[in-house]
Amino acid sequence: KQILFRYNKPSEADSIKQSEAFYCRMNQRRSVRSISSDPVALEVIENIIKTGGTSPSGAHTEPWTFVVVGNPEIKQQIRQIIETEEEINYQQRMGDVWVQDLQPVGTTWVKEYLTEAPWLILIFKQVYGFKKNGQRKIHYYNEISVSIATGFLLAAIQEAGLVTVTTTPLNCGPSIRVLLNRPVNEKLLLLLPVGYPKAEATVPDFKRKPLHEIMVLCQ
Amino acid sequence: KQILFRYNKPSEADSIKQSEAFYCRMNQRRSVRSISSDPVALEVIENIIKTGGTSPSGAHTEPWTFVVVGNPEIKQQIRQIIETEEEINYQQRMGDVWVQDLQPVGTTWVKEYLTEAPWLILIFKQVYGFKKNGQRKIHYYNEISVSIATGFLLAAIQEAGLVTVTTTPLNCGPSIRVLLNRPVNEKLLLLLPVGYPKAEATVPDFKRKPLHEIMVLCQ
Ligand SMILES: Cc1cc2nc3c(=O)[nH]c(=O)nc-3n(C[C@H](O)[C@H](O)[C@H](O)COP(=O)(O)O)c2cc1C
Ligand SMILES: Cc1cc2nc3c(=O)[nH]c(=O)nc-3n(C[C@H](O)[C@H](O)[C@H](O)COP(=O)(O)O)c2cc1C
Repeated sequence: KQILFRYNKPSEADSIKQSEAFYCRMNQRRSVRSISSDPVALEVIENIIKTGGTSPSGAHTEPWTFVVVGNPEIKQQIRQIIETEEEINYQQRMGDVWVQDLQPVGTTWVKEYLTEAPWLILIFKQVYGFKKNGQRKIHYYNEISVSIATGFLLAAIQEAGLVTVTTTPLNCGPSIRVLLNRPVNEKLLLLLPVGYPKAEATVPDFKRKPLHEIMVLCQ
Repeated sequence: KQILFRYNKPSEADSIKQSEAFYCRMNQRRSVRSISSDPVALEVIENIIKTGGTSPSGAHTEPWTFVVVGNPEIKQQIRQIIETEEEINYQQRMGDVWVQDLQPVGTTWVKEYLTEAPWLILIFKQVYGFKKNGQRKIHYYNEISVSIATGFLLAAIQEAGLVTVTTTPLNCGPSIRVLLNRPVNEKLLLLLPVGYPKAEATVPDFKRKPLHEIMVLCQ
């Protein structure tokens, strides 16, 4: 069943103004790895998750589960799992090239933010789902859909005036899935610690590519 | 080299208000497949692409190229490539289950929007890049990074008051890459036609999952 699309057309001037303003707000975003333990209202986190849930998804499968962890013991257990794996990643699995490529980012296997941030958002992709009759339902493009939803989530974190860092807990998915009691059709994709930055927080001195390096125009 | 992170902490009330307002704006977004040929200022498209470029990326590789097509002949050639492939996809390759799963979305292999929309944005992932000395540079997590960037791009399209539909031109990547003269390290990931909706545009009557179906809280 199709319904009429409800829509108000903006003026061209408004379109230019709003797109520019949004760009400026998003361009302030940085990955912050030094997050204060100041509390953040659950209502803000809920608005952020709801925004993630407005994302498009292949065949409207909505193949995402966002696990929001505020519990200190669970945060501690997650940190333990990740730091143990990351130490092995850095020292053995990743290889010199990767470790070298990460040098400018300045990361190590110690991740204080996993216990200091008031909230952790663990983003799971549902690699398949279930129909009403219990049969498996294929989730086309589930990783792309969940990553796009993460883009909406990150934009929402920025709009809320909070900070995070997008992280990929390499090899930790299965243990964390079990810890959080998630079913086997869900796989951990990304982990976002969310909160306010510490007063002395620093970030790598990166520039972003200018428009002409990322856009090709065929007019 | 690290620099101080520049930041203004919002009040909790502002954080709640802004996150709620952003959710409401994003929740208006729908995939629209009926796009008018009314022109859209290039400046708006540039702001949208710039916003995509603010996305985080694995090890700051920024592994994206956004090809923006306004040229009518190129749009026609892209439409030809995609409709030819899509007819085969629907009739042979996708299988009954997929075609059935797509029924509620109401899509077919005819894609008028590919020639009617004023702009097409073709999103390429760079599966590897190059260092200054010409050596290949691995792009960790390039597909996830480019999909996250697409989330920022879609949010920006919404903020500009424009519409699009996220599409995956199955099996068309290599031909379109050659048509657009892109190098072999770039692979087509997604295609977004961008413009205003037609006055009579309809959308499938979908609901989104409520918060309790997408969020799990460990407090
Ligand atoms: C990864 C991905 C691939 C998609 N592929 C197509 C596509 O090829 N054709 C299409 O018409 N819609 C496609 N869509 C759009 C979805 O059908 C749409 O997002 C979904 O039905 C939910 O509707 P909404 O975006 O209006 O909320 C795709 C969406 C995503 C995220
Ligand atoms: C898919 C993906 C994976 C990432 N993985 C990590 C990670 O495991 N640890 C980390 O500290 N940063 C990680 N990052 C953050 C990037 O290092 C960061 O986005 C990049 O350096 C650019 O900096 P910016 O986000 O401040 O613009 C990841 C980002 C993306 C998109």
